Parts: sequence; structure tokens; C-alpha cells
Amino acid sequence: MRITFCCSQTNAGPWLSGFRAEIPGVDISEWAAGAPEADYAVVWAPPQQFLDEQPGLRGIFNIGAGVDALLQLKLPPAAKVVRLDDAGMSVQMAEFVCHAVIRHFREFDGYEQDVALGKWSYRKPRLRTDFPVGVMGLGVLGERVARSVAQFDFPVNGWSRSGKSIDGVRVFCGASQLHGFLAATRVLVCLLPLTPDTRDIMDHEMLSLLRPGGYVINVARGAHLVDSDLIALLDSGHLAGATLDVFRTEPLPAEHPFWRHPKITVTPHTSARTLREESIAQIAGKILALQRGEPVAGVVDLARGY
Amino acid sequence: MRITFCCSQTNAGPWLSGFRAEIPGVDISEWAAGAPEADYAVVWAPPQQFLDEQPGLRGIFNIGAGVDALLQLKLPPAAKVVRLDDAGMSVQMAEFVCHAVIRHFREFDGYEQDVALGKWSYRKPRLRTDFPVGVMGLGVLGERVARSVAQFDFPVNGWSRSGKSIDGVRVFCGASQLHGFLAATRVLVCLLPLTPDTRDIMDHEMLSLLRPGGYVINVARGAHLVDSDLIALLDSGHLAGATLDVFRTEPLPAEHPFWRHPKITVTPHTSARTLREESIAQIAGKILALQRGEPVAGVVDLARGY
Repeated sequence: MRITFCCSQTNAGPWLSGFRAEIPGVDISEWAAGAPEADYAVVWAPPQQFLDEQPGLRGIFNIGAGVDALLQLKLPPAAKVVRLDDAGMSVQMAEFVCHAVIRHFREFDGYEQDVALGKWSYRKPRLRTDFPVGVMGLGVLGERVARSVAQFDFPVNGWSRSGKSIDGVRVFCGASQLHGFLAATRVLVCLLPLTPDTRDIMDHEMLSLLRPGGYVINVARGAHLVDSDLIALLDSGHLAGATLDVFRTEPLPAEHPFWRHPKITVTPHTSARTLREESIAQIAGKILALQRGEPVAGVVDLARGY
Repeated sequence: MRITFCCSQTNAGPWLSGFRAEIPGVDISEWAAGAPEADYAVVWAPPQQFLDEQPGLRGIFNIGAGVDALLQLKLPPAAKVVRLDDAGMSVQMAEFVCHAVIRHFREFDGYEQDVALGKWSYRKPRLRTDFPVGVMGLGVLGERVARSVAQFDFPVNGWSRSGKSIDGVRVFCGASQLHGFLAATRVLVCLLPLTPDTRDIMDHEMLSLLRPGGYVINVARGAHLVDSDLIALLDSGHLAGATLDVFRTEPLPAEHPFWRHPKITVTPHTSARTLREESIAQIAGKILALQRGEPVAGVVDLARGY
């Protein structure tokens, strides 16, 4: 059994030795043009040429939760595409979102600005019932985030295409209930997969439906959000702010207005990082399961796009 | 039945009308020197004269969780001292501490500084197993905080005088186990009551026992911390930082070094605010229970000091 590793912007060395430790005797190497064909591939944003040279791949393991970039490519016909599920990412996402929600609700950013000016300030406590949080996308990450936020006694709404039941979360389902979900939400968290159906979903019309003083947290993909529509609604005052971790172009271009907008907090795509040890263990376990003919979690439905 | 209201720095009007709504027909008014004696008092930092003029008080309700200031005074002999229990404070405390822990662990403060300079930065993910959190004081607030932090998969230690069992928390108990608690802790959260035993507890010797790179979050009372010892350990590099919400003198004096120390985040005693509606409902319920001769929660043990 041979594994090929083709991850852009990634130092291959520790990954290769990690897989060798998990699967003794495995034949694994970093891909280069013209390399022999492999049975399984571990990838992040591979070039089309890589896939064209590997028509016999049985499994392609993406070292991230979102496979939108991979699905833009022409894939080998028999290959299962497998995304990471969790591998330490859901707790990071819960941390990131709870930090952003609490920071906005409790005005800790405002207190910090006051303290920098030497001001011991008083702000009237706000009611958490006025800050319902809505999570779009209820996969492994979205469900964990919704549960985490609910733990701080916020009203929590959830929305997904197919719906699911989560304790303490009011779940809305499908296109027909999106309007109701938005009208009941003030702090919107995007954790959707990026598909043709969800691209540009956060546009002027949709964001206008949020409660006045709305807040946007995008931790999914930059292409979910229409940048200029967000800025227009921040500048009109309908939205109070946004925390954005993902962007249409990354790194965010130097001239992009998000960098300097006073109501926007930018982070450099750091909400949920791929953790090497957890990822290697999970992918190695799945490769061994596939070798034994067993099913594995996280296989992408190519028609659905996630 | 008569209630007297004596809360410094508090607008009495909404409190008085709140109690009138909760206890129809109640005789309640704001205290002034020479006013008739009452059965119950609702207080925050009252003057000694107030207590001297009310020898027949049966219950003194403190509109905060900490009664250290009140216990400095000479109290009427028959009066039960009752503190607020929870009344919306524990969730605020959980928010404040989780925000501070996550912000430090995930380096969100550092990312913000980078972004302000237009930098799209990379920081190596840190392991949460390297950041055990220790909560000192396991009352209503401390227990809620410990559970909340544990939800983000940090190792969590707890320490209190008498100990208690909390799922997911390694509990240390009494003076003999304080050393072990500190040696197992990197992020120290203080939620102790302020008593003669706990005053100045966070001194050079104690803070030196924390793991290297330690972090201090004080949300109890300023007098728990020896200010100059904290600064010495930050400047020596043994401690990485601190978030301080409480101070020996509040507002924090303009010349105090905490205001400008690069490793200290100051907030203006805002970690858990007294919420008027919840507090009125709780105190009114307890007054009616005492009138019926029933026991109430939150009665302070005067010998123990909390």
C-alpha cells in the first residue's frame, strides 16, 4: 500500500514521519511530478496535475474540514473524498466563537479601549435575552459551537439544510425556515460548507433580516459573505460589528477595507487549525479501515458538495 | 414589615419600585439618618451609623456576592447577613473567565496587535494540555467557572478549604494540598471569599509555585493579590500575564502601574455585575421566606467570614 502526500504550504517532514509511526512499514512520500501512482492521497489544495497522474486513487484525505477547493478539481473516478472530522477542530471553533460572542456582548473591546485611555468606565449591563445567537450549519463544528454558546445561557438558534435536534437549541430547517431563523437572530455565526447553494449567502438581503444591532461571525469560507454588503450594513448602522476569520482572498490583500474598518475584527484564518498529531492518527485509522473493507466517517457526498 | 434600603453609589428609585412590585403593600424607603427602624435591610457598603441606628434588624441583604466590606462593621446582634447567591452572576463570571482564558491561550490579543499593523501572522498552535487551569474557591461562582472552562477540554484543577466533587475537575482541598494545586496549575483563577485567611494569599511565594508561563485571573477581591509581587514575577518572566478585574483601591488610582503594564489586562470591576431584576426577585423571595419562618440560602457564617 502506497500513500502520496501533496499539501501546499505544509512542511511534509513531520507528517511523513508521523504516518510512518502510525502505520509501520507504510510506503509514503511527498508527491513530485512523475512519481509512481499511490493507493491513498493526503492533500491540501493539490494541483490538477497531481490528480491527473493518480487515476487509481482509492481515497483522498483532505487535511481540513472544508473540501470546497478540492471539489473544484476533476477527481479520479473511484476515489472516496474524506474530510477530517473534528480532530481537535470543534473545540477550537467553540473557543473562537464563544470568545467573539462574549467579547461583543460584554463589550470587553470597549472596556479595553477605555482602559488604554486610563478611563475606569461604567457600561450598563446588557440582557442576554436581547442577544440571540444563530448558528448556520449544524455539522460536527456547528453543533459543538451551538452547544457551547448555549452553555452561557444565550438563546441559541440553529439552521441547516436538513435540520437536526440539539438540546437547548431552536433548530430551523431548509430554505423555507431561513427567514424565521434570521429574524430570530442577532449574532449570526456562519459554519456552512461552501457549495454553489451557499456561495454569497450572506448578502445585503439576508443580513438585513437580522435583528437591528446584528453581529456577524464568519468562520466558514470568505465566499459565503458579500464583502461590500457587509460594509454597507455596518456603515448604515443596521449591523453593529463583525468578526471575520476567512476571506475571499487569503492572506487578506493589504488594500482590503476589512483591515481598517472600526467595526470589524480580522483574524488570519486561525479559528480552527489542523492539528498534526490528531489528524495523522485519524487519517491513518481511516486508511487501515478502508484496507480492511470497513466504512469510515467523513466521506464527502460529491453531489451535495460536503 | 418594613424594609430600609441603604446602597451607596446606587440609584434607589428602580430598586424601591421593584420591591413594591414583588411584595405588594411593603413599606420600603431609602435610609436617611434618624429614619424609623426596619425589620430588613438591603445594603451595599452602608455606613456604621446606619447599622447603629437599626439594632432590631432581622436580616441584612447584601446586593453582591462578597460580604467582606460589610463584615468589617459592627452588626446588629440578631441580624442574619445574607449574600446574593448567583442571581445571574455565575454565568457572567463564567463568561469573563472563559473569555480571558481563551484569549490568552489562543493568543487572540497578539493576533489583534498584528492585525492593527496590517500583518497576516502565523502562530504555532499551543497544546491545551500545557495550559491546566486552576480555580481557587469553589462556591457557586467558582464551581460554575470550573465547569465552563472544562467544557473547552482544558485540564481543570479546583482548590477550596473544604473541597467538593465536581465532574471533570481535579479537586484539591485545604492548606496541605495548596502546593500540589499550584504546581499542577498554569492559569490561576481567584474566586475566593476575602477573609483574614485569604488576604494577600497571592504573594511572591505562592505565585512562584505556578508552572512557568503562569497566568493570573483575579475576579475576587483586590486584597487577595500582592500587587508588587505580581509585577516582579511578570517582569522576571516567570508569569506570562494577568487579567485583573478587582483592585485594592477602586477605581484603580491613575498612578497605579497596572494601568500601563504591557502584560496586564485591566477591567473596571465588571466581571459579574449585580443584575437588578434578578436580585430584587431573589431578596424579596428570601424576605417572604424568613417572614414565614423558613430557612434561606446564602446566610453568611460570621465566624468563617463567608
